[in-house]
Amino acid sequence: GCVGNLGGFAGVFDACSAGYRHPLLVSGTDGVGTKLKIAQACGRHDTIGIDLVAMCVNDVLASAAEPLFFLDYFACGSLDGAIARDVIAGITDGCCSAECALLGGETAEMPGMYRKGEYDLAGFVVGAVEMKDLLPRSVDIRPADVVIGIASSGLHSNGFSMVRKVVEMSGLGYKDASPFGTGHTLGADLLVPTKIYSKSLLPVLRGAHVKAYAHVTGGGLPENLPRVLPRGLAASLDSNHWEVAPVFAWLQHVGGISESEMLRTFNLGVGAVLVVSPEGTSEVLAAIRQSGEKAWEIGVLAEKHGDTPGVIVSNLGESLERALKCCDVTAATAAANHLTEHES
Amino acid sequence: GCVGNLGGFAGVFDACSAGYRHPLLVSGTDGVGTKLKIAQACGRHDTIGIDLVAMCVNDVLASAAEPLFFLDYFACGSLDGAIARDVIAGITDGCCSAECALLGGETAEMPGMYRKGEYDLAGFVVGAVEMKDLLPRSVDIRPADVVIGIASSGLHSNGFSMVRKVVEMSGLGYKDASPFGTGHTLGADLLVPTKIYSKSLLPVLRGAHVKAYAHVTGGGLPENLPRVLPRGLAASLDSNHWEVAPVFAWLQHVGGISESEMLRTFNLGVGAVLVVSPEGTSEVLAAIRQSGEKAWEIGVLAEKHGDTPGVIVSNLGESLERALKCCDVTAATAAANHLTEHES
Repeated sequence: GCVGNLGGFAGVFDACSAGYRHPLLVSGTDGVGTKLKIAQACGRHDTIGIDLVAMCVNDVLASAAEPLFFLDYFACGSLDGAIARDVIAGITDGCCSAECALLGGETAEMPGMYRKGEYDLAGFVVGAVEMKDLLPRSVDIRPADVVIGIASSGLHSNGFSMVRKVVEMSGLGYKDASPFGTGHTLGADLLVPTKIYSKSLLPVLRGAHVKAYAHVTGGGLPENLPRVLPRGLAASLDSNHWEVAPVFAWLQHVGGISESEMLRTFNLGVGAVLVVSPEGTSEVLAAIRQSGEKAWEIGVLAEKHGDTPGVIVSNLGESLERALKCCDVTAATAAANHLTEHES
Repeated sequence: GCVGNLGGFAGVFDACSAGYRHPLLVSGTDGVGTKLKIAQACGRHDTIGIDLVAMCVNDVLASAAEPLFFLDYFACGSLDGAIARDVIAGITDGCCSAECALLGGETAEMPGMYRKGEYDLAGFVVGAVEMKDLLPRSVDIRPADVVIGIASSGLHSNGFSMVRKVVEMSGLGYKDASPFGTGHTLGADLLVPTKIYSKSLLPVLRGAHVKAYAHVTGGGLPENLPRVLPRGLAASLDSNHWEVAPVFAWLQHVGGISESEMLRTFNLGVGAVLVVSPEGTSEVLAAIRQSGEKAWEIGVLAEKHGDTPGVIVSNLGESLERALKCCDVTAATAAANHLTEHES
């Protein structure tokens, strides 16, 4: 769909050549938050661009839009060629995974604005969807509809201010062995890039059974799932039905974080959710698994009464406890004890 | 063209309802550079959003695209409601002037990334143009075509790292009276928002006579005009044919900046240029002036020989000298003398 325009002032894209008859354009912008600070602390810049593309692309999927093109904004104090090259390489990888064109970008050098080695990133995506495929189909959503959870790859790009605090409390460095038994460093495990769901989920989202998709970002399941539900409906989820990844259990344990704060800060293993008709559930689950994603039936919709929450998650404590068994908490515990002794 | 989607994950826009049959999408991203630092130093946040919209919108005009919608990325350390409100108000003003929809945005709070009171901004615009109207029409551009310059409103959003250095050398503060005889403060004069050209220029750009449009941003006339010229053609411009604003003369005088650096850093009074057929020039000039913009015939295209520059500007020294007569340089001169005495 790209129309050649190298060195031009703007990128040109032909949406009609992408096969659309009357496309709605769907557009979103996002950053990667303070996951940047961890990338910068680890000196590892080649995957944060994947996160940037993912955060934007996974948002336009909420309209069942196919990502067409992406633009990035890269801001720094003074340009470090090696860092910029790695960052752009990650963005290019992300665009390949999302099958969208990298149409343009802006590199801004702003002396005095960013410290040496620091930079910020913003991404912008435009997708397209035929009117008939547009999600959410709110009028069709009803009690007993099933909530399907799609596995995240880890933290994705939310909650990193909290992550940094907990890592500091743990006494671990980003280069230390990960306490999650992966054989990687802690930094590498925290930086695992956000999953890009467009290729795997788009065919499913445009099928007959899916009524809504929510991207689980800041605010977690309790704030993102209700964004696509009609008033009057609530979701009842059971965390025993999905895999809560060890990283979340470790963060809760070391940081002493409440369950409700965990729910509103992290994806807890579910990067996106679909609302599906009960009769279509097994077909949708099979299609998603066929595409290579892990997915689970994690809950169901029901009438919402009065001021009750829009999302209830049961068995979270139990799930976190089970996940914690995969973590090595000795180092963190020793550090915490040391801190306590030091303070008393 | 907006399709209601409040609280949704992404904005939805119907380009076909905007009257396009086979629209090409034209997209650009930009920031406002260190003009931000001056807005922040002056505590004046309600016009920098206009600059942000202008920098993006004026870029997609290079394809003769009508801006359809805009998204912003606003990043700060911790959100200051009053500042954010002013910034967004400016963005809204800019979108009104450009007649494009503010379709969405992202507000990122990143503790430890930005200092108190500091923030960064990125903008993204999507425009549309029918294939038949797409600019530049490079094959039609030939020797003797006329270059029309459109007046800028001042510095626009480029060269501000240099501006900040010169202001520091001048001994003036942003709250001091402007040395340009405007009756405003220096800060206010430096912050005059970038002109948004879409409303006034789009009808002209889609007329028969215009072959190319260049947005004069970083790199000035020498780097931006050649971006739309075919190899083998150069532009010969005469700065006596346009109004070089006093601000540029003052910056050169106080900063001791060479003419060639002035040309590559600032717009020098010309915010955009059009390449027009000789027979269409008077009609195009009349139409632009009718729309309320100042415009001048500033030069002509000719064959380019060998390694000669793509843009030659004559009489610049004379024009700057004349403009300097409108400036009060006593304060800056006194400060410079004081510095010199102090150092010796």
